[in-house]
Amino acid sequence: MTTSSLDLQAYLKRQKDIVEKALADALPSDWRIPQPLREAADYSLLAGGKRLRPIFVLAAADSVGGEAASARALSFAVAVEMIHTYSLIHDDLPAMDNDDFRRGRPTNHKVYGEAMAILAGDGLLTHAFHKAAEAAELGVPAERALAVVRELSRFAGVSGMVGGQADDMLGEQGITSLEQLENIHLHKTADLIAFSLRAGGHAAEASERQLEALGLFGRNVGLAFQIQDDILDLIGDETKLGKPVKSDERQEKVTYPYLLGLDESRSRVARLTGEAKDALAGAKLADPNRLMEIADYIMARDH
Amino acid sequence: MTTSSLDLQAYLKRQKDIVEKALADALPSDWRIPQPLREAADYSLLAGGKRLRPIFVLAAADSVGGEAASARALSFAVAVEMIHTYSLIHDDLPAMDNDDFRRGRPTNHKVYGEAMAILAGDGLLTHAFHKAAEAAELGVPAERALAVVRELSRFAGVSGMVGGQADDMLGEQGITSLEQLENIHLHKTADLIAFSLRAGGHAAEASERQLEALGLFGRNVGLAFQIQDDILDLIGDETKLGKPVKSDERQEKVTYPYLLGLDESRSRVARLTGEAKDALAGAKLADPNRLMEIADYIMARDH
Repeated sequence: MTTSSLDLQAYLKRQKDIVEKALADALPSDWRIPQPLREAADYSLLAGGKRLRPIFVLAAADSVGGEAASARALSFAVAVEMIHTYSLIHDDLPAMDNDDFRRGRPTNHKVYGEAMAILAGDGLLTHAFHKAAEAAELGVPAERALAVVRELSRFAGVSGMVGGQADDMLGEQGITSLEQLENIHLHKTADLIAFSLRAGGHAAEASERQLEALGLFGRNVGLAFQIQDDILDLIGDETKLGKPVKSDERQEKVTYPYLLGLDESRSRVARLTGEAKDALAGAKLADPNRLMEIADYIMARDH
Repeated sequence: MTTSSLDLQAYLKRQKDIVEKALADALPSDWRIPQPLREAADYSLLAGGKRLRPIFVLAAADSVGGEAASARALSFAVAVEMIHTYSLIHDDLPAMDNDDFRRGRPTNHKVYGEAMAILAGDGLLTHAFHKAAEAAELGVPAERALAVVRELSRFAGVSGMVGGQADDMLGEQGITSLEQLENIHLHKTADLIAFSLRAGGHAAEASERQLEALGLFGRNVGLAFQIQDDILDLIGDETKLGKPVKSDERQEKVTYPYLLGLDESRSRVARLTGEAKDALAGAKLADPNRLMEIADYIMARDH
C-alpha cells in the first residue's frame, strides 16, 4: 500500500464514521414512530456497507467548497443513503429478487415480514426528502435545497433508479445487447451516484459547469462500479467479498463479462474511470484530487 | 337539493376536472420511462375517485389568497394525489390487505403483477416530491415550496401515513380501544388531509396562524370522513357506493360503529365537522365559506 492509498483509507473511514453517526439519528428520536417500523427501517439503514454514495456527496462538496461545504452537505448524504437502503429492501422482496440474505444477514422481510418491509421501504423513501429539505437548516440556500429535492426525485424515480429496476425486471428473461445492459446499470446504479455528486456540488453552490462535470464523473464512476461488481462476482475472493462468488452464473444473469469477456470488461472499467477523471479535470474545482483517488480506488478494489 | 349544494356540486366538478387534467400530465411525456411502469402508474393515478385531497389543496389556497393562489397550488394538489394513489397500490398488495378490486376495477398488482405494482407505487411516491418542488415554477417562493416538501414527508411518512398503516397492520388482531382506532385513522387518513389544507395555505403564503387553523380543519374533517366511511359501510346503499356494504363486518374489522354504536358515531361526525368549521372561523381567512361547505358535504354524503 502506498502512502496515498493509506491516506485514502483513513479518509474513507473518517467519512464513513461521520455518515453512520448521522444515519443513526436519521429518524428523529422525538417523532412518534411505531416501534416495529422504526426497528425495521434502522435494521437495514444501519447494516453497514461501503457508504459510497454519501461519501461521494461529502467529497463532492469538499472538492468545490472545502470542509465547510462538506458539513453543509451532510443531510443530502443521509438522504441518498436512505434512498439506496429502501431500494435494497424492496428489491429483496419475494415479488422482486426474492433474496433471503444481504451482507451476511437475513433480508428485511425475512426478519420483519413482507408488509413491514414494504412499509419500512416506503418510510425511508419518504423520509429521504425530509433530510434533503433539511439542508436549508445547515445553511444551504432554499433554491439549492429545492434543486436537490427535484434532482433526487428525478434520479431516483420513474426515469431513474425505479425505471432502471423496472427495466431490469422486465428484461430478466431477454437481455441480449450491451446497450440494454448498460441502460439498466445507468439507471439502476449510476443515476443515484451521479445525483450524489451533484447534490454535494449544490451544497457548495457549484456553478452549472461544475455540476455537469460532477454529474458526468458520477455517471462514469457508477458504470465502472457496476462492471467491477460483475467482474468480482466472477473472479473475486469470497473471503474478501463476504459473499459467495459466481452467483451471477448460477442465476444465469447477463453481465458485462458474459457479454464482453473478462479482458474487455476490465478495459472498460479503466476507460470509464479515465473519462470520469477527465470530466473533473476541466471543471475548475478547488480540489478534485480526493474524488479522483476514490475513482481509482473503486477501479482497483477487490471487494 | 338547495341552490347552495348545487353550486357546490358544480364547484367540485370543476375542481375535479382541473385536477384530473393535471394528473394526466403528471408523469412528463418527454421523460424516458419504461412503458409498463408508466402504464401501471397511470392505471391507478387516472382511475377516478373523489379527488378530495387535491380539491382541498386548491380550496385552501383559494380561501387565503383567491383564484390566483389556487392556480399556484396545482402542483401540490397533484403531489398529494400521487401520494394517496401510491398508498392504495401498496395497501392492496397480497402482503398487505390483499385486495383484488378497487373502485370496481382489478387492483394494480392483479393487472401488472406484484413487482410492477411495488415499483409503480415507489415511482409515484418519488415523483410526488418532484411535483411539490415544481411549485416554485408556478410562483410559490422557494422557502414555501421547501416547507411543503418537509410537511409532505412528515405527514406522509413514518410518523404520519406510513406509520398509521403500520399501526393498522400491527393492530389487526387486537384493536380494542377507541384511542387505538382514532390514532390509526389520525395518521392513516387525517394526516394527509391536514397536509392538503396546509399545502394550499403555503401556496397562498398564509400566516402561521392560518396554517394552523387549516391544519386543524383538515385533521377534524379527515377523522369525520373516516367515521362516515365506517357508517356508510354499515348502512349505505350499494348502488350509490359502487361497492358492497358490510365488508367491515365480514372482515371482522373494528370500526367506530362497532366500538361506539351508530348513533354515537353519527354525533361524532357532526361534532368533528363543527370543530373543523370553528377552527376556520377564527383564522381571518379571506373566504372560509367554500371549505365549510365541503366539510358539511362530507358529513352528509351518502357515497
